[in-house]
Order: sequence, then C-alpha cells, then structure tokens
Amino acid sequence: MYPDSIKNLIESFKSLPGIGEKTAERLAFSVLDLEEDQVEFFSESLVSVKEKIHKCSNCNVLTEDYLCYICADNLRNSKILCVVADTKSVFLFEKLGMFNGKYHVLDGLISPLDGINPEDIALDKLIDRIHKEKFEEIIFAFKPSIEGETTALYIKKILEGLDIKTTRLASGVPIGADMEYVDSLTLERALNDRKEIE
Amino acid sequence: MYPDSIKNLIESFKSLPGIGEKTAERLAFSVLDLEEDQVEFFSESLVSVKEKIHKCSNCNVLTEDYLCYICADNLRNSKILCVVADTKSVFLFEKLGMFNGKYHVLDGLISPLDGINPEDIALDKLIDRIHKEKFEEIIFAFKPSIEGETTALYIKKILEGLDIKTTRLASGVPIGADMEYVDSLTLERALNDRKEIE
Repeated sequence: MYPDSIKNLIESFKSLPGIGEKTAERLAFSVLDLEEDQVEFFSESLVSVKEKIHKCSNCNVLTEDYLCYICADNLRNSKILCVVADTKSVFLFEKLGMFNGKYHVLDGLISPLDGINPEDIALDKLIDRIHKEKFEEIIFAFKPSIEGETTALYIKKILEGLDIKTTRLASGVPIGADMEYVDSLTLERALNDRKEIE
Repeated sequence: MYPDSIKNLIESFKSLPGIGEKTAERLAFSVLDLEEDQVEFFSESLVSVKEKIHKCSNCNVLTEDYLCYICADNLRNSKILCVVADTKSVFLFEKLGMFNGKYHVLDGLISPLDGINPEDIALDKLIDRIHKEKFEEIIFAFKPSIEGETTALYIKKILEGLDIKTTRLASGVPIGADMEYVDSLTLERALNDRKEIE
C-alpha cells in the first residue's frame, strides 16, 4: 500500500530495538521533511559507523582506532581499572569526567539463566591484562543485580592471591528518589551500607 | 568523547522529531548490532525515500509515480472524494480497506493562530479538481478540532451552489474508552450526535 521506498524505510526503522510499527511509520515519514543533505549525512553515518567502529585491541571499548583514546593516554592513572559490562558505561563515566583511570569492557555479565557463562564474556583478555598491567585497584562498575554480583565475585575469585584491592560502586537510594518508590532490595542495601554522618 | 562516526549517527537520529539525546544514543549503538546488509539497506532506503517520493500530480498523496495507484485505479468509485490533511491519513483508510472512493490530500489544516491561512494549504488544486471530476459527495476526514472544523466549513462555503453533498466523519466516544477519561468536548459532541437504537 505504501510506496516501496517508504515501506523499505519503515522496515529499516523497525529493525532497531524498541521501535514498533507506529513509531517506524512516524520516523519514516519524518525523513521526508528533512533537508536532502541531512538525509545523505544520516545515510552515510549508518554505513560509516558499521565500517569504522570496532573494539579497542586493549580494553574492548568501541573506537575507530587500533587503541582507543583512553588506552593511548599516558597521563591517565594506570594503577586503577574500572571494569564495565558494555561500552556505553565507559562513555557514561567519561561524561561525568570524575574518573581518571583505565577501563576494561566485558562482553556482558555472567547470567547462567540466560545461558551466558563465564567463558562467554571475554574474561581471558581481562585477566591477561591484569597480570600484565599491575593495577592496584579494580572497580567493578556493573549494574546492581544478581548478574553484576556474580560476575564481580567470579573475577575476584580468579584474582585471589594477587595483591589487588577490588571495589564495587556504592548502591542505595538514588538522589531525589521518593522513598515510597524505592524497591526493597535497594532499601536493604542502603541500610546495610549506611554511612556515618561526619 | 564518542568516536566521530557514532557521534554523527547520534546527531542524525536526533534530527528526527521526538528523538532525544538518550534515545538517539540507544539507537546509534543498536545499529552496531545489525547485520552489515541490514545497515546498507537502511542507508539506501533513506536516500531512496528522499529521491523517489513526491506528491501525486492529481491528489497530492505521496507516491513514486506520476499518478498514485489510487488515482490510476479506474475501478474505484470516482463519485466520492475523501479530503484529508496529510498522506498518512490516506494510508490509514487504505489499511482499513473500507473506502473505495478517491482521495485528496491538503497541505495541512487552516490554523490562523499558527499562521496557516487558507492560501497555505493548496486549496486551489482541490477546488479545480472538484469542478473537473464532478463528485457527488465530499467527505472531510480531518481530526476533530477547531482547525478541522474551520477547514471543512471554509471549503464547504467555496462549494456553495454546487450540487455536492458534504459530510464529515462521526465523532464521539471512542470504542473501548472509559467514560471517565473522555474529555468534555467529545462527550458534548457524542450527546449532540446521538443515534437512535434500531
């Protein structure tokens, strides 16, 4: 019913996660309202991102280079390593601008229920790196969840015997949250991890 | 902070209406998970939609041809014309499959408050067509709103003296709606337009 080119564009938008039929239609039609050079730029960006982006050979963060800008930066603190579950977490921390150490990106978190076992998340590369680069502290910056805990504990166990401090992000009640909407696990953790007021 | 190609793709997604920073980031990253040929298809669809799609020379519906498939179809009822505010409305009706007449797409609705006056919505082409094609009924299928009413009344006035029946879509309480969430204008209209139970 739609002309072919509109139909194809709707299909393409639908291939993205979280985009259903209605949204895909709305987006496809909105492309018609863009300037021609905006559409060309969009079209080229799609192909270019797929062609140029790959994992940093050292830390796995997505980059256009052989070594990402973080691994290549000798001015950063190379004694502290922040281990994350995906590249997006790295950029979240980088936007904050509060962390000056190095990163390592795993291929997700251990989740036996989803069939994701320790051998599936590229741990070897992390362990090799830890042995080579002699970090003093490793921060596990995973989301607070069973998968996050499991992955952190599993890695901590592998590192037993090495003189490395391992830490995790604090969890608790988010700033600005209404107490009544905080789930019980978070509240329990917040109570256990309570801090003395100084 | 993001590699350039990711940054460019995020910008492109943000150029679409209703897509903010967070969603654009999510979509850009999800492109990395698509197959290479899916991305190429997406990229080509974008350019192709912009190159090939234009208005039907007769009714203004978006099409790849000189005449859209509806105007070109001699088996449709050419005595009844459905006037809509945009191409998407045509495809909504076509999906329903209940209407077998012809369509005409205006360039939006009259809305003096937004600076959209009668001369801005391509009425000339509609009026010309009505004189030429000798319709017996014209349905105004605009959204129920002040703009919709104004546009319908304005066109009806122009057609005064011609022997053409003009109708509008019924409005009222939508099927399945909870009465308490129906706004008062809709309820008023539903009461005024009440139908005898047969």
